[in-house]
Amino acid sequence: MLTGFSLPKSPKGTSSVVPTPPWHFVGTAIAVSFEAEPNNIESFLPEGLELDSNKCTAYFVEWQAVSDGEEKEYLDPVRSQYKETIILVSAKFEGNSVSYCPFIWVDQDVSLVRGMFQGWPKQLGTTWITRAYNLPSKASPIVGKGGKFGATLSARERRLIEASITLNETVESLPTPNFAKAVNVRYFPNLELGQHDKPLIHQLVQLKSKDVSISEIWKGDAKMVFYDSPYLELIDLKPTRIDSGYRFSFAMTVDNIIPLKDLR
Amino acid sequence: MLTGFSLPKSPKGTSSVVPTPPWHFVGTAIAVSFEAEPNNIESFLPEGLELDSNKCTAYFVEWQAVSDGEEKEYLDPVRSQYKETIILVSAKFEGNSVSYCPFIWVDQDVSLVRGMFQGWPKQLGTTWITRAYNLPSKASPIVGKGGKFGATLSARERRLIEASITLNETVESLPTPNFAKAVNVRYFPNLELGQHDKPLIHQLVQLKSKDVSISEIWKGDAKMVFYDSPYLELIDLKPTRIDSGYRFSFAMTVDNIIPLKDLR
Amino acid sequence: MLTGFSLPKSPKGTSSVVPTPPWHFVGTAIAVSFEAEPNNIESFLPEGLELDSNKCTAYFVEWQAVSDGEEKEYLDPVRSQYKETIILVSAKFEGNSVSYCPFIWVDQDVSLVRGMFQGWPKQLGTTWITRAYNLPSKASPIVGKGGKFGATLSARERRLIEASITLNETVESLPTPNFAKAVNVRYFPNLELGQHDKPLIHQLVQLKSKDVSISEIWKGDAKMVFYDSPYLELIDLKPTRIDSGYRFSFAMTVDNIIPLKDLR
Amino acid sequence: MLTGFSLPKSPKGTSSVVPTPPWHFVGTAIAVSFEAEPNNIESFLPEGLELDSNKCTAYFVEWQAVSDGEEKEYLDPVRSQYKETIILVSAKFEGNSVSYCPFIWVDQDVSLVRGMFQGWPKQLGTTWITRAYNLPSKASPIVGKGGKFGATLSARERRLIEASITLNETVESLPTPNFAKAVNVRYFPNLELGQHDKPLIHQLVQLKSKDVSISEIWKGDAKMVFYDSPYLELIDLKPTRIDSGYRFSFAMTVDNIIPLKDLR
Repeated sequence: MLTGFSLPKSPKGTSSVVPTPPWHFVGTAIAVSFEAEPNNIESFLPEGLELDSNKCTAYFVEWQAVSDGEEKEYLDPVRSQYKETIILVSAKFEGNSVSYCPFIWVDQDVSLVRGMFQGWPKQLGTTWITRAYNLPSKASPIVGKGGKFGATLSARERRLIEASITLNETVESLPTPNFAKAVNVRYFPNLELGQHDKPLIHQLVQLKSKDVSISEIWKGDAKMVFYDSPYLELIDLKPTRIDSGYRFSFAMTVDNIIPLKDLR
Repeated sequence: MLTGFSLPKSPKGTSSVVPTPPWHFVGTAIAVSFEAEPNNIESFLPEGLELDSNKCTAYFVEWQAVSDGEEKEYLDPVRSQYKETIILVSAKFEGNSVSYCPFIWVDQDVSLVRGMFQGWPKQLGTTWITRAYNLPSKASPIVGKGGKFGATLSARERRLIEASITLNETVESLPTPNFAKAVNVRYFPNLELGQHDKPLIHQLVQLKSKDVSISEIWKGDAKMVFYDSPYLELIDLKPTRIDSGYRFSFAMTVDNIIPLKDLR
Repeated sequence: MLTGFSLPKSPKGTSSVVPTPPWHFVGTAIAVSFEAEPNNIESFLPEGLELDSNKCTAYFVEWQAVSDGEEKEYLDPVRSQYKETIILVSAKFEGNSVSYCPFIWVDQDVSLVRGMFQGWPKQLGTTWITRAYNLPSKASPIVGKGGKFGATLSARERRLIEASITLNETVESLPTPNFAKAVNVRYFPNLELGQHDKPLIHQLVQLKSKDVSISEIWKGDAKMVFYDSPYLELIDLKPTRIDSGYRFSFAMTVDNIIPLKDLR
Repeated sequence: MLTGFSLPKSPKGTSSVVPTPPWHFVGTAIAVSFEAEPNNIESFLPEGLELDSNKCTAYFVEWQAVSDGEEKEYLDPVRSQYKETIILVSAKFEGNSVSYCPFIWVDQDVSLVRGMFQGWPKQLGTTWITRAYNLPSKASPIVGKGGKFGATLSARERRLIEASITLNETVESLPTPNFAKAVNVRYFPNLELGQHDKPLIHQLVQLKSKDVSISEIWKGDAKMVFYDSPYLELIDLKPTRIDSGYRFSFAMTVDNIIPLKDLR
């Protein structure tokens, strides 16, 4: 009997790229809220979503993630650590404000494939974020007023995003759009000849997380630049105005997803 | 209107990780045919396949791949080159000999995700194979009698396979099992709570390729060792006997897949 | 006029791999103190050093480093972050206890070349260490009694070291041997024919650091395994006994080195 | 007795990053000859060299390299394969035309450190070049009239160079400047306080190679773009005119270097 949540299924089930849910996540994020050209945002929205506003957020996160009871996953950190850049735009689903992700990059296969099962449109890319340390040093910013943090994204050897923030004050709220109401598209195309545009799965889904906890949230000023690519259309969502920068940590558990609408 | 064969779908469709088929491949392979413990092979076969023999082949390949008319993909080689290790075992489907892949590793996202649409159980891993050059040098083997080539696989920072072959003679046939009759499992699990063991897609599929061409095939002796891992079950397919080593190049086009049997 | 501290020298001097000192470092370390076979330790000591004891320490560190006034280096973290594994053994120089580094691995060129100028025998290798976060989560250990942290080293695709520690109590002292009295060998071989064994530089040097600060030091139990390699002789320093595990952060500035003895 | 050509020296000498010379190399190169702003070229020349012309060449090479008798190095290809981008400019030394390298990038430590011993100003960077295969395929160019090959360089996550060539005819000569008369600067700065600008080694050296062989040389048209970086000054050598593109393979042995002039 083969077992395991994802391929490759195997006799013991420990070979699967993605372990069986629940999945527990904790991460430290640099975020930049910004505005983009509304027509362009709209052009990236899937059927079923409508334009809500021109508000967007870019998140750059250093994650550690494990499955249930799997202390040994974080003791072999190459299995549990990954870095991620997430672009979220504002949208409406049946009149309610939600967020939608047109682009997301990670640097490990477990995260890439796990994300696909949630409808995240993941690609490989490398994210770097400035770290804080609990010691005074010219080599790191303080987590406090005036502390400066950078974040960068590159994919297939091209720098795509550079951002930096300067902390100013603690606030109560995360930037919006955020993960709380993210709507994704689960998708699996059909390679059968003549069926290339008739996917086996094409479905709007609502992400679900539980046991969410959030650290102190620092907010301040931000800069961010998107760079062009010969094929990635990220540049069409480039900031027309930068709003604010944020730094916070975030923990959550995921074991569920809610189908909203079949798009086939 | 969003377009593109895979996520992320986008207005122009050029952002998708996987471009629209057909996909054209050309690669140079080192292969080692071997025998493994038949009970263990059987334990890796999905429903619908039966044990055929204890014959297996490991392929280590340096690929270059493009989609239709996309010269520009091979002019930006980070988009088109990848290296792959493929383990194939022998199996029977409805009485006919086929091959089945319990493990496969690649080093680029386009190949990882494209493979998932074909049912390949791809993970990230790094493959290295010795190269030949068209000049005499102590730094490279000859493509001829006595030429020695190595191949290695590592994943998540652990060496998993080391192989080497010594060329002896040219032959007419590829090792078996090979790609020609590969049967895979298309699979997409359902993250909805209570449905984790009720996949949305779970289907035996027959791979299809066309416009296949094969170079001169060199055959000779081989050595190969599989190393253990705390979670990957590859070691259960370790060689009980090494058969032969091979070196050849291979070109093909893929734009189709044939569903064989629903396993849900 | 060309300028810059290291090659490549250039008109503005900003192209050098290594910026001009001082260099400011801050890092978080997992460390394991252990004993190795004294004869083997002795066999790794350079001329001028004598065996002191069988005590050794392995350090696994996530660093962030900048040169003077270079906030922009930590805002582009790929320039300033690197991970390192350091093996230190005990030795005596002219009757005084010092530490000596037979092996060290880093994952960035700036650190590799900067280290060579200090006599560190750096190679490329990838280090991973479990991270702590300031939020309760199944995905991370606590920095407190019972918290478990892992660390691994791989080089050229082979896993070389696996370690894990369990925190028990805070202590006042770092493990010994440590960085405080490290003696290295500055070395630059001569490629001129007939001079391959007559280096241009071959010198015992004493490392110097200033503005050192150290966080709270957690100590506890540890496990550690060294794996064999076909060419690296690390295995000859494998633990014969594991002493303790440590976790702490560390900041310092380096702009000096003290020549001790010419070995030519 | 410690042995080995480079650090780390060890009892058996097999732990050294760089094995003892001679070193045997074989590689396949894409090259683009171009002109740059003469004043800028001159600004990169070290003391002892004078401007010769505005002619430059960029080489993008896939190498395989071993030390003497070390078949086992190419059977573990991660030890012997690396990719390199080399910029050569024209210069004069004591009235004779030579070539000088202001920038060079490689992707393995053995090559980085080995290069430093020859005065190459090596940094880590990733080079990709289009491959040819001995089979007709849409996925690869032909090695013949009309065949198109691309090459790219990236360092620290930024794309720095993109080039492509179209083969037209075979020719007898390599582009100039080339490796044949390369003059480098051997350099080792002194970290002792107050000596940061008084290097221990600072010397013009003439590279030496032997047993050189060169394949058929294809020449044709070329395109090449240099991209800017916040700190690398490569852009100052950007093409003001593109001359030609080349593709060829190259083998050589290195065990010597000739000191020309002390620059201290």
